[in-house]
Amino acid sequence: SLSSVDYQSSFQTENLPGLINIAAYLPEFSSEAISDYTEECIAAGFTMARFLPFSKKGVLADKDSLASAKKSALDKAHCDYNFSVMASSVNEETIADLNTESGCLYLHFENNSSGINHVTEIASHFSLWPQTQAVVTDAKSTTLASVLLLASLHNRRIHIASVTSKDDINLIVLAKQKSLPVTFDVSIYSLFFTQNDYPGARFLPTLEDQKELWSKLEYIDCFSIGSIPVRLAEFTGHKVSTGYGVREAVPLLLSAVHEGRLSLNDVVDRLYTNPKIIFRLHDQDDSGLQIEIDRVIPSGTGEWSPLAGKKLFGSVQSVKFDCHDVYFDGELNFKSTYGRDYSSVSTAENT
Amino acid sequence: SLSSVDYQSSFQTENLPGLINIAAYLPEFSSEAISDYTEECIAAGFTMARFLPFSKKGVLADKDSLASAKKSALDKAHCDYNFSVMASSVNEETIADLNTESGCLYLHFENNSSGINHVTEIASHFSLWPQTQAVVTDAKSTTLASVLLLASLHNRRIHIASVTSKDDINLIVLAKQKSLPVTFDVSIYSLFFTQNDYPGARFLPTLEDQKELWSKLEYIDCFSIGSIPVRLAEFTGHKVSTGYGVREAVPLLLSAVHEGRLSLNDVVDRLYTNPKIIFRLHDQDDSGLQIEIDRVIPSGTGEWSPLAGKKLFGSVQSVKFDCHDVYFDGELNFKSTYGRDYSSVSTAENT
Ligand SMILES: [Zn+2]
Ligand SMILES: [Zn+2]
Ligand SMILES: [Zn+2]
Ligand SMILES: [Zn+2]
Ligand SMILES: [Zn+2]
Ligand SMILES: [Zn+2]
Ligand SMILES: [Zn+2]
Ligand SMILES: [Zn+2]
Repeated sequence: SLSSVDYQSSFQTENLPGLINIAAYLPEFSSEAISDYTEECIAAGFTMARFLPFSKKGVLADKDSLASAKKSALDKAHCDYNFSVMASSVNEETIADLNTESGCLYLHFENNSSGINHVTEIASHFSLWPQTQAVVTDAKSTTLASVLLLASLHNRRIHIASVTSKDDINLIVLAKQKSLPVTFDVSIYSLFFTQNDYPGARFLPTLEDQKELWSKLEYIDCFSIGSIPVRLAEFTGHKVSTGYGVREAVPLLLSAVHEGRLSLNDVVDRLYTNPKIIFRLHDQDDSGLQIEIDRVIPSGTGEWSPLAGKKLFGSVQSVKFDCHDVYFDGELNFKSTYGRDYSSVSTAENT
Repeated sequence: SLSSVDYQSSFQTENLPGLINIAAYLPEFSSEAISDYTEECIAAGFTMARFLPFSKKGVLADKDSLASAKKSALDKAHCDYNFSVMASSVNEETIADLNTESGCLYLHFENNSSGINHVTEIASHFSLWPQTQAVVTDAKSTTLASVLLLASLHNRRIHIASVTSKDDINLIVLAKQKSLPVTFDVSIYSLFFTQNDYPGARFLPTLEDQKELWSKLEYIDCFSIGSIPVRLAEFTGHKVSTGYGVREAVPLLLSAVHEGRLSLNDVVDRLYTNPKIIFRLHDQDDSGLQIEIDRVIPSGTGEWSPLAGKKLFGSVQSVKFDCHDVYFDGELNFKSTYGRDYSSVSTAENT
């Protein structure tokens, strides 16, 4: 369904459906952060953002924090969005009550911020969170295996976020080959940067891991942004603004298309088609973007970037959201167009 | 099939089939150690010993070490026996070749002595070790979950050795309830001693763990001896002789029978019936023992014991092995009666 049109430029253009940012990492759950982050989404071609339930400053692990985040977002977000909730070692029962008001239950293991360190705590979340609602985890290594086992024992689908290691992707591929209902995403940064470029940045894959990620491309369900761009900036000692890393997503992937490592359909599958199915997202009929294939992006726009000095091929030319032309050739144009909260209805529509 | 006979004493006696020591821990794989250990087995009512593939001084992780251990055992063991082999991070292919010459493949994670620390290494052992041959592991916590997941993905039975924690037993019980083909044993010492008695002895259960083990008794397939008695002696700074802990097995369990916490059938199921099925062991028709119910064992026989000063009710009166009366009322009587090596034939017989 991709149509090729020449449009106001010497570059080949393509129309794509509005993209889905499945792992939107906020600095905090404030109106300003949500407004700024979603501006970046629109400028980058994402018309739907699934906010992660953890930020640099707080988490959504109970009714009050979720309600407060939703209030902050109201009439402030520039694209559609939902909020997920975070599992902890003490909220099995209270969090399950929020299942119809959130995009998914997220089992977050980084820095052990959830306090979950027993298999039985994972099991108890799986018992209480409804079977029909999505569960996502960033578990790695043996913790990932625990989560997969419990998902399997509870006959439930699970989505694994931001896979970086060779072992983890191979375990998931094995699980898929054995028909376990598991899906996963890889952060776009993990496809283009490694620990070899940034020694000590253990949140990135090694070069060997990255080769494995690319060789298992056919199994990767979604591409994500997540927290890796911000963590890389922090790791290298740079201050970056809210939504850092979002605008680089499409140009990085289009550069891989340019090099023949991906097809444009590979990109659309992983930023739109699969995310929409996996997370049961609503239709956004009057939304979409136009990209320019092979257009070289100017590098060094002031803010620090691991891409400074590198050439990217391909850019977002224009974005339409809810029938409005909200972005064109570098300029945002909102006229009080706001995205809506789909936390409550994302699954109800599609069951 | 238990028959009650009064015999030369005022105590009630019972005839039991020759018991199976499913986890026999040697100080080393020498003739002397094997001879001494199996004497203890006979005196304790065990007519079959499955030697663990790790000892205080060495492991059986290749062809040569297995051959050497078998040579040491020849005409030296006082009961029947087999040797298992140990998986490592480098022997996936070579160890699989030994499957018909060993009692099982053992995935040993204590102290990371196997070097296995990637899920893919476990997966590769499961791919190469034949489906029909037993696999045992002492994995705990998330590593246990990884092993269970991979066993499940490879559609294979697995036996979990020496379960001590509440979380682990509950995970296994959940797996059993969901029809995963998993069996497990609990060390007899874990049923009677805790970290509360020996602060810092992390190889023992806590009091809370131990309560869970007892409450899940119906799910426990086997009782074992393993390395815990020796480790407890070491932990408390005592030197003990080879086979330490073996003779206490039956009196400890019979004391629990005396207290009404176990039935005699519970004991026979877990020291004979289930082990024989799970590890596909040969018949030992002319072997068995006679126990004296409620007979108080004299405590403090010279060697250190955590039981010194405590009363145990129930003892082994006599043992028959391969038609010979090899033990009677405290006296061993061998006349060059030797156990045979069933490493190679243990599974072939019963498939
Ligand atoms: Zn704005
Ligand atoms: Zn806990
Ligand atoms: Zn080109
Ligand atoms: Zn409108
Ligand atoms: Zn002897
Ligand atoms: Zn490894
Ligand atoms: Zn009594
Ligand atoms: Zn004979």
